[in-house]
Order: sequence, then C-alpha cells, then structure tokens
Amino acid sequence: MAQRVTVLDVAKAAGVHPSTVSRALKPETRSLLTDKVSARILEVASALGYRPNGIAASLRTRRSQTVGVVIPDITNPVFPPILSGLEEVLDAEGYIAMVANAGGDAERQRLVVDRLLARQVDGLVMATVARRDPVVDFCIAAGTPLVMVNRAEAARRVSSVVSDDALGMGLAIDHLAALGHRRIGLIAGPQHLSTGLGRRQGFTAAMERNGLAEDPAAVVFAAAFARDAGREAAGRLLDAAPDITAVMAANDLLALGVYDVAAERGLRCPEDLSVIGHNDMPMVDMVSPALTTVHIRHREMGMQAGRLLLSLMRSTSQGGVDVVLQPTLIVRASTATARA
Amino acid sequence: MAQRVTVLDVAKAAGVHPSTVSRALKPETRSLLTDKVSARILEVASALGYRPNGIAASLRTRRSQTVGVVIPDITNPVFPPILSGLEEVLDAEGYIAMVANAGGDAERQRLVVDRLLARQVDGLVMATVARRDPVVDFCIAAGTPLVMVNRAEAARRVSSVVSDDALGMGLAIDHLAALGHRRIGLIAGPQHLSTGLGRRQGFTAAMERNGLAEDPAAVVFAAAFARDAGREAAGRLLDAAPDITAVMAANDLLALGVYDVAAERGLRCPEDLSVIGHNDMPMVDMVSPALTTVHIRHREMGMQAGRLLLSLMRSTSQGGVDVVLQPTLIVRASTATARA
Repeated sequence: MAQRVTVLDVAKAAGVHPSTVSRALKPETRSLLTDKVSARILEVASALGYRPNGIAASLRTRRSQTVGVVIPDITNPVFPPILSGLEEVLDAEGYIAMVANAGGDAERQRLVVDRLLARQVDGLVMATVARRDPVVDFCIAAGTPLVMVNRAEAARRVSSVVSDDALGMGLAIDHLAALGHRRIGLIAGPQHLSTGLGRRQGFTAAMERNGLAEDPAAVVFAAAFARDAGREAAGRLLDAAPDITAVMAANDLLALGVYDVAAERGLRCPEDLSVIGHNDMPMVDMVSPALTTVHIRHREMGMQAGRLLLSLMRSTSQGGVDVVLQPTLIVRASTATARA
Repeated sequence: MAQRVTVLDVAKAAGVHPSTVSRALKPETRSLLTDKVSARILEVASALGYRPNGIAASLRTRRSQTVGVVIPDITNPVFPPILSGLEEVLDAEGYIAMVANAGGDAERQRLVVDRLLARQVDGLVMATVARRDPVVDFCIAAGTPLVMVNRAEAARRVSSVVSDDALGMGLAIDHLAALGHRRIGLIAGPQHLSTGLGRRQGFTAAMERNGLAEDPAAVVFAAAFARDAGREAAGRLLDAAPDITAVMAANDLLALGVYDVAAERGLRCPEDLSVIGHNDMPMVDMVSPALTTVHIRHREMGMQAGRLLLSLMRSTSQGGVDVVLQPTLIVRASTATARA
C-alpha cells in the first residue's frame, strides 16, 4: 500500500526536526533557516516526491471522509453545541466526526492525536490547544489539515475560530459598573490557555476603562475551567477580598462554583454578591438564580470550524484564517445593584 | 516511498536496545526504566514521528487499541458521564475511545458504524440501539465485539449495561403516592427504545401496585428524549388532563420541558404540579426548583460497559452478559404534597 510522503518522512531523510522541514517548505518562514539548510530540505523533499499537503491529499486514492475532533473535557457543556454545529457542516459534505476526549495533559493529547492520525482521519479540529502547544507542532509537521476551535495558540500559525474574549469581558464589566459595583473580584482561568489569558486581560482593560481599581487580592486563578476548581478559587477570593460586591468568573462552570461557596457562606446572590459567567452554556438559564453571562454562539463556532476545515481538506484554502465571533451579554437574575 | 518509523529506528537514534524502546512506549512497562531513560526515548520517538499504534502496529497485532462509541444525541447531558466512566476503564488498558454522534436515524447510524469499522476499531459501544435494530444485526454479522449501554435490544443477543427502568419508575410513583398524589400524568419516551418502553411499563405496574387508576388521557408520548419534545408533550398532557397534580417524565430533559410549559401556564412547581424526572443528569440539582429524579449511576454504567468490552476484545468472555444497575430516587424541590 503506497503511503503519502509526509513532512515526517522528509524530516527523517534529511535528519532534521519536522518543524524545520515545515519552515523550509513555507516561503514565509524559510528565512528563519540558513540557505544551506533550506536548500537541502527542499532537495530531499523533491527527491522523495513530497507535495504540499493539500495537493497530496487530493491525489490520495483513499479518503476516510472522517474528521478527528480533540476536546479537553467531555463533561464541559460548552462542547456539545460546538460539536453539533461542526457535525451539521461536515455531515452535509459526507464527513463524520470522531470525537476523542484528551484531557488537559499534553502527553495524553499527543497520544490521542497519534491514534486519530493512525486511523487516517482527513483532518483535525482541536479544542484543546494551549498558547504554546507541542501537539500543534506535531500536527503541522505531519501536514494534517487542522483548525483550532474555542482556544487559539499564541503563534497564530493555524486557522482558528474563537470568541472575542476581551469584548465579552468588557460587556460584563460595563454591566457591573452600571449597577454601581466598584469592588469586583475576578476568578481567572488557566493562563496557559488563550481563553484564560484573554479574559484576564479583558477584565483588566475593562476595569481601567470604567475607572475602577483592580485589587490584586481580588484576582485569583482557578486551576481548571471546572466547577470544583471554581469552588476552590471562590473560597480563596472571598477570604482574600471579603468586601467585593461582584465576582466575574472566566467561565460558567467557575461561576457555578461561586454559587456553591456563596450558599455555604450565607451570601445571597445577587443581593449580597452579583455573579457573572462567560459562555452561556446550556442550562445556565435554568439554574437558581439564572446566570448573567457572556453568550458565545458555540454552534456557530462549530459550523465555522467545519467550513474552515472543509476548505483546508479540499485545498481551496491555505489556512491562516482567524474567525472571531462577537459575544453578547445576557442579563439574567444573578446580577443586581451593588449593596451599599 | 519512505518507510514508517519503526521501533528499530527509534532504538538506533536513541542508542538503546529495541526492547528498551518497546518498554518505554508501553505505559504498563514504562516503570521498568528510569524516568530519564523513558523520557529521552519518548522524545526521540516523538522527534522521528513514531506512532506507537499506527498502521504497522495495527497490521502486526491486528489491533488498533481504539474503540468506537456511537451515541444518539451529543447534546443530551447523560452521555458525558457515561463516556467518562468508559474512558477511565479503557484508558487504563491503553485504549482510546472515538465517539461518533449518530442521531436517531437508523440509516445514519449504520453509516457511522461503517465508518468506525473502516477505521478498524477493535470494538464498539452503542448507546443508540433500538429494541429491534438492524445496525446490531450488521455488527453481529461483522463479528465486531459490541456492548450496548443505556439501551438494550429486545432480542438480548449482545451484552448490555442498563438501568432497571421499572425499579426507577416504581420508586418515583411510590414517592408521589406517599405525597397523596392520585392523578398522575406520564410523559413517556419513544416506545421503540428499551428505556421508553421499560419506563412506560414500569409506570403502569407502579400505579397498579399503589392502587392508582391510570387515566389513558394522562399518558402522552414524546417524539424524542429532548427538552423541546417534552414541551410539546407537556402541552398535550395538560390540555388532555388538566386535573393532574403530578407529572412523571421518562427522562430529565422531558421534565425540563414540563417546567417550561408549567411556567407558561402560570402553574407553580411543586405547589400546583409536582414533577419527577429520570436520570439525574448533571445540573438538575441546580435548576429551579431542583428536580426530584431517578438517579442512574451513568459513570458506573460506562465503566461496566468498558469492562465488558475489554473482556470481549480479549476473548476472555463470550458475551451474553446483561448488567442491570439499580437506580435510587433523589428527592429535591420539585415534588410536594398533592394540592387538594
């Protein structure tokens, strides 16, 4: 069975790292290498019959019509709507999605990607990426059509579909400021993720814009975007800054953790403490009190990612497209005028 | 054409014996080496693009170490905990799960199963099965190790892990009867699914056992186990039997549909109408009012399915095992004494 020549094959034959091959093959990054190195790699690639991924893919005799989707946490309710939108777009073109839950650990993510590539998926959608992510390096080196969803990497080498995290935080903080809140705490997400960093930066910018002082004691970092991590962080926040009148949580699961701790401590929401989430995941309209949150169109996010991936797999796009969705604020019952 | 990177290539590049590489690459034997040695080997393997369970390994062992999981509705919150439990068991044995969302249509389910089998999965877990299911016929004919989860077929040819639906309905109806409810409506699920039929039969048996008359007008059938289908069915139920004091819903999503319709019609829950769900899916403890429901241990369900499938894939079991989990009733705030 003939195998398509990949960047990995070229790297092996040339005795260099796959990322070096990728750099040599792209005109825009070739200058990062010495002329001698790039010339040798191009020679090896040519001798092996390497063709840039899109063309090679279109020449392949056997397509799997299958796309791998890597998610970090199957129990986080934001992913089902993303997957739904993605599947709708892929299904219309005869593709099915195979979803693998990879967790937050890079080694396991790499294993999962390995397995998906070994199953010969035609492309990958990754919802797991960290701002600096060796798994992405690996996928780029392997020449796999790849789109990132929800999170993006810092280096911006791969197409992505994300929400405007700074805009979302701005809408939320403006709302709290309009309600008279001046002492606002933040439960930030993990800073190695674009959503964690972007929302934290958005918070700071929005506080400044509203003329509000950011109290360093009132900014805590959750270990993960999960309800139990939110509980743990909310405990620290309320210990360190008991006078805050509002909590901005970097996602809805963290906000639910704030609900838990507020209830334990006899704080009424929103009378004693306003709480805002981020995502508008399914069901937060039904919790008590219904959660005020930044609404991200996750289904649209999935659809956009599907379209980007289809165009990559068909070589009708070279990638390098960042789609940024504008979030909106949904005001429900968890925010109210600041207590005196 | 370039050859796939082998254990020998990795061994040569790392300067160690091939058996050392094999040990480093298998999670279960890695502890035989020092951390330093195994880390270096994994690094070299990664740099060369070695895929531990690629096509070569698959051809050698005829194993992909990959399991396909077919679910009917990725947006139904009962599936993530099932998948979590399944993955925990599979992961410990070096397997990953690839999840495909197949919807409720048999033709699409068959397509999805085809694709998974074409990707050479070692086994399948199906959460989609109907009581009479041609897709199961196909899998049996293909000789694929197969376990059903959550739903079972009528013919009982394949191992399954399900909840005792009749027991669950009995607990719920006993609770309502003890609260003085005599006019109890049922929103039943689709009858071609074992959960739909079993819960409907369990309702009838439990009403009889409690000496309560089942009013045919107060039994309606939802088109799907989904919130919008629950809304539609709840509207029909309250039109046909406006004097009921309680609604038993065949799952939690249907119960949330009842909440929606009750709110629209100005009925307070539980003062005017008690509501019970089935499943205890994530978040129903946080809705308002918190939902009284039949608790199924979905994580345990997934773990049991994983164990059954592992023993089938290893031929240490011939199948034909039905695991039935005993549910419990979780009383929250959506049920109260019947109104006069």
